Amino acid sequence: VAPPLRALAIAQDRLSEKRLFDRLRIPTTHYAPVDTRAALLRAVREIGLPGVLKTRRMGYDGKGQAVIRTLDDADAAWQAMGSVPLLYEGFIPFDYEVSCIAVRGRDAALAFYPLSRNVHHAGILRVTLAPWRNATLQRAAQRYLRAVLTDLNYVGVLAVEFFVRRGRLLANEMAPRVHNSGHWTIEGAATSQFENHLRAIAGLPLGATTARGHAGMINLIGSVPGKKALLAHPDLHLHDYGKTPRPGRKVGHLTLMAPSGAGRNDRIRSLVKSLYPELGRII
Amino acid sequence: VAPPLRALAIAQDRLSEKRLFDRLRIPTTHYAPVDTRAALLRAVREIGLPGVLKTRRMGYDGKGQAVIRTLDDADAAWQAMGSVPLLYEGFIPFDYEVSCIAVRGRDAALAFYPLSRNVHHAGILRVTLAPWRNATLQRAAQRYLRAVLTDLNYVGVLAVEFFVRRGRLLANEMAPRVHNSGHWTIEGAATSQFENHLRAIAGLPLGATTARGHAGMINLIGSVPGKKALLAHPDLHLHDYGKTPRPGRKVGHLTLMAPSGAGRNDRIRSLVKSLYPELGRII
Repeated sequence: VAPPLRALAIAQDRLSEKRLFDRLRIPTTHYAPVDTRAALLRAVREIGLPGVLKTRRMGYDGKGQAVIRTLDDADAAWQAMGSVPLLYEGFIPFDYEVSCIAVRGRDAALAFYPLSRNVHHAGILRVTLAPWRNATLQRAAQRYLRAVLTDLNYVGVLAVEFFVRRGRLLANEMAPRVHNSGHWTIEGAATSQFENHLRAIAGLPLGATTARGHAGMINLIGSVPGKKALLAHPDLHLHDYGKTPRPGRKVGHLTLMAPSGAGRNDRIRSLVKSLYPELGRII
Repeated sequence: VAPPLRALAIAQDRLSEKRLFDRLRIPTTHYAPVDTRAALLRAVREIGLPGVLKTRRMGYDGKGQAVIRTLDDADAAWQAMGSVPLLYEGFIPFDYEVSCIAVRGRDAALAFYPLSRNVHHAGILRVTLAPWRNATLQRAAQRYLRAVLTDLNYVGVLAVEFFVRRGRLLANEMAPRVHNSGHWTIEGAATSQFENHLRAIAGLPLGATTARGHAGMINLIGSVPGKKALLAHPDLHLHDYGKTPRPGRKVGHLTLMAPSGAGRNDRIRSLVKSLYPELGRII
């Protein structure tokens, strides 16, 4: 199987993905495959409550997931989802989430973007702050991504999302493609993730992944808010995907550039407060 | 006539353009309209030699121009070009060339990019260095562009090219559109000239025109050189227009980003030396 297809096959099945992380000694959540009701009860007993029952395939943006807090929840989730292969994972009370985007060339050259700090809500990525400077986490993330990309003999951009708990990374999932948490690289990095993906697959040298300033990205969910008010914010850039508005749909994103991380955080906090108050305090 | 059409009509006729500069007290070259052989000889006598005979319409990239050094040149040029309306201009022994790109919103808001220093060869723009910092020239350029944009009640991006002679600006020509000497703004400015043109015509607030780092742009003429060698240069970005190669044709451009103006100049000099040695010492 060609390397990109192998990466896809693995990333499309949460069980293969977890096994890859295990094999490469990348810390991840406790998990167990669930194909029968008995297997689910055994997994709940061994891994504990609360946990999350997930379909092994076709899950994205929080779809195909059920939080299990009680044995009754487990029964209900089994009724609803039991017709397809499942995975039970222990729930991680994480401190926050980050992702790392890396790119590997056809000549095996590697480049890593600075970490992004991500805020999800109801399973959907809502906000990314990048670069998120933490030398220890950056080093660990790069070690893990290097292992994944090399093992898969991968070419192109690949992202891994991590939970951060007590200053350590736990791999959540990987995405063998340009990633929503890397959209900030369009304005915020020397070379965007899109340009680097094209360079990689075309066999060209990779471009610099260094950050330029401090970026904050907000996904536009449902519909694009009034453009006039948005674009009055200095150094804010609107990406309108031209999609039909629909509740919960990603229809665009904003990238705000600021000269400092603290300034960026303040401005993103205030934008989120006015656009999406339901997110509460994001950072 | 709607404002953009008026700007187009003026910019499409070198004589109207010169008259606009005169009316707005924007220094420009000496000129005279030429519709007869006698008028050409009179213009040469009054303005002097050397000079440039230009078609009033349809000239670009040095096409439709003849340098006049002697009365014999004038005769030959009249034979070749005399069937269409012409303009005779005094030749300016300028020190270098700059352009200023400005944008005006539907609400009359104005924004100006930092000056670009431009290098032409055989009438074709070859290299742009931006920002080109010179507070006196920047101030003068902005005053002139403000006058043009306001007079025309223009909406969108407009560029004016200037000769610099003894520290003063002389308007050469204007372009009522996004301009080749502003391509550096894609990587090198907070908001690109393209984004700002769209913001302007859509009635949205204009984006920041501040430079981010120091950009050097090289037009790719004739064909795109080997991409692998080009993209190995750090923080160099290739824009391939996908055009059929043809001698003299602009088929793409490179933008190189550097942390300092001096570093940018050094790297552009060395790139030009290897790609287009015929340009000689560009700066």
